[in-house]
Amino acid sequence: MSFHSMWAELLPVGRSSASGGYRRYAWTGADTDCRAWFREQAEARGLTYETDRNGNQWAWLGDPAAGNAVVTGSHLDSVPDGGAFDGPLGVVSAFAALDELRGRGARLARPLGIVNFGDEEGARFGLACVGSRLTAGALTVEQAHRLTDGDGITLPQAMEAAGHDPDTIGPDPERLARIGAFVELHVEQGRALDLSGDRIGIASAIWPHGRWRFDFRGEANHAGTTRLADRRDPMLSYAETVLAARREAELAGAVATFGKIAVEPNGVNAIPSLVRGWLDSRATDQESLDAVVGGVEKAAREYAAAHGADLDVVRESFTPVVEFDHALRDELARILGGDTETDLKVPVLGTGAGHDAGILSGRVPTAMLFVRNPTGVSHSPAEYAAEDDCVAGVSALADVLEGLART
Amino acid sequence: MSFHSMWAELLPVGRSSASGGYRRYAWTGADTDCRAWFREQAEARGLTYETDRNGNQWAWLGDPAAGNAVVTGSHLDSVPDGGAFDGPLGVVSAFAALDELRGRGARLARPLGIVNFGDEEGARFGLACVGSRLTAGALTVEQAHRLTDGDGITLPQAMEAAGHDPDTIGPDPERLARIGAFVELHVEQGRALDLSGDRIGIASAIWPHGRWRFDFRGEANHAGTTRLADRRDPMLSYAETVLAARREAELAGAVATFGKIAVEPNGVNAIPSLVRGWLDSRATDQESLDAVVGGVEKAAREYAAAHGADLDVVRESFTPVVEFDHALRDELARILGGDTETDLKVPVLGTGAGHDAGILSGRVPTAMLFVRNPTGVSHSPAEYAAEDDCVAGVSALADVLEGLART
Repeated sequence: MSFHSMWAELLPVGRSSASGGYRRYAWTGADTDCRAWFREQAEARGLTYETDRNGNQWAWLGDPAAGNAVVTGSHLDSVPDGGAFDGPLGVVSAFAALDELRGRGARLARPLGIVNFGDEEGARFGLACVGSRLTAGALTVEQAHRLTDGDGITLPQAMEAAGHDPDTIGPDPERLARIGAFVELHVEQGRALDLSGDRIGIASAIWPHGRWRFDFRGEANHAGTTRLADRRDPMLSYAETVLAARREAELAGAVATFGKIAVEPNGVNAIPSLVRGWLDSRATDQESLDAVVGGVEKAAREYAAAHGADLDVVRESFTPVVEFDHALRDELARILGGDTETDLKVPVLGTGAGHDAGILSGRVPTAMLFVRNPTGVSHSPAEYAAEDDCVAGVSALADVLEGLART
Repeated sequence: MSFHSMWAELLPVGRSSASGGYRRYAWTGADTDCRAWFREQAEARGLTYETDRNGNQWAWLGDPAAGNAVVTGSHLDSVPDGGAFDGPLGVVSAFAALDELRGRGARLARPLGIVNFGDEEGARFGLACVGSRLTAGALTVEQAHRLTDGDGITLPQAMEAAGHDPDTIGPDPERLARIGAFVELHVEQGRALDLSGDRIGIASAIWPHGRWRFDFRGEANHAGTTRLADRRDPMLSYAETVLAARREAELAGAVATFGKIAVEPNGVNAIPSLVRGWLDSRATDQESLDAVVGGVEKAAREYAAAHGADLDVVRESFTPVVEFDHALRDELARILGGDTETDLKVPVLGTGAGHDAGILSGRVPTAMLFVRNPTGVSHSPAEYAAEDDCVAGVSALADVLEGLART
């Protein structure tokens, strides 16, 4: 089955006709459909299929028990109203690259694996990379049991409802020990390749990033009858903090975003008692990130005090910088730079997005390939990559897998 | 039954143990309990009880068919997590004032009515004063049929589920024609009486007010990977507009509030595609209100353009200034000013809040009494009036009813 056919088969699954975006949330019907598709692809190719204790799916060419396996893959779930490429491009490209290797008659000395990690986006339970975190021991079973979705359904309940035994979840060091290299192909989520005129890039690092919750508490009151002087309106200090975050990010060459908000009581004629905003910030290095978040918090405290609001700031998550394995990165550059036929240049670039590859990099030599995104848009129905570039990505991935698995 | 006992009986109905605020939304269980309480109070006093075609409740002393009735009352529903006083104070005071008149042996030449208007706050269906609007013909049956709550339940469906026949709703000019004067007692929703040191005030007018929806549309994108320069983040122009509204209101001596917001997709790691904010603004006169809203909209358009966002502004509701009947207002001032025993001063003041009295004032001579609110807080669990002031309100209302109904 060609890249094009596989892509077309996945396109309608979990797509909202209202938004045109994807709603493939972990352990829902759309996710189950995606997982069934993965299994079919594995079995149609005669690969050995298995689901691991944490619900990640694996397809094997050769015997993984032999060890030193070369693994590629990504995820099939989506953010709310996400695009078609973030995740699925890496999984579809993995199967297509395997087909290309077979077409070439490549001889592989190492087992080759294709993986679909569960719940990468964290759209349903609020934590990203649950499947890879559990496997790597970066999320404890106790923590996983406390994850709940917006309807109060726990992760174990959701797993069970989807037919996966939740009693099996937990770290899986034996499985990781069999992997000699993990390479994740992903659509770029920025415009670096577009600006440099390259189709394919290699990841250097994932920027340090985190999420901070800002709770501005004031006093609920009638919007029509409360004099401005008598108000403690937390929306005002929230608004000033949104603008401070933009200024601090510009100063540090970083990014900072208030994209999620919850207001109480959220009535048209009520001054809010609570405005809760979430800051997402990322930077190339830890010092820059500290400067941004420290600056935003300092400004927010001043604004809150000026408007009679109380402020609590809680760091909800934090991931330090992830430097991908240098030797593997250089090996990929050597393999791809040597491909004179397609004249591939392979720039090495950092990324602000988290990935399962970032979780695994603490346990396994890990690398990432990026495919050009002409608009830089992602996490949106408008996310896009040209088919030519996707096909170039498949070839590059096939070259990398062959180069790594040959010896 | 004393004011105190009636008040204590109503206090627990529809109160949230989590917030301490009230959730008495139209045609819900809490509302049904309040309505049952009203009927009991009417019947316990031997009053003639009836529910009108629009679900408003009436209790009559004397025969309303005689015409030229004096009516008092308010509403029993609440905003989300509202206070105990906004609405119920007027209804409880009405029954208590009737008891006081009977205790005095007052002779009334006109029929006396007590009313509980349905769905004053509009918390469930988004439109305020539905009961009085329908009766006054200020809301058509077709418009009422289109009202839906957050769960998609229509107003007729909600009425039917609560046991009220929705086929009867519509204008009720005959009922209004029987009313010679309507007086609504209400807790003040500001601090004017507290600042002037008075217990009771008389309303002069309801300020012109309206609601405007501001839709800032940008482009959803990944918060970690999208360069600041490539963003079209609508949260930025929303934030600047919130601050502009405060500045414009200060300049005009008016009020302006962004208290409700809806964000799409509202994800921590997603730049929003849409930030929808609702502006509530009110001013003493039309020119001031136009200046505020015009100024906010002009600023918002500039900010949106600067950040690559599109802006739509929709006026969702508007109520022009309501001047209460001058003759009735002067009559109330004469009646209350003549009460040398309690040495009542009765300042006349405007209000930024809408009321059923504002709806009826176009059809019936209408007046309002305000009871002091020591903090000015309303639409909040912290809403409060001292029992002494409430009892003074009952006496003032009894004086007014007796003074009006005597001849």
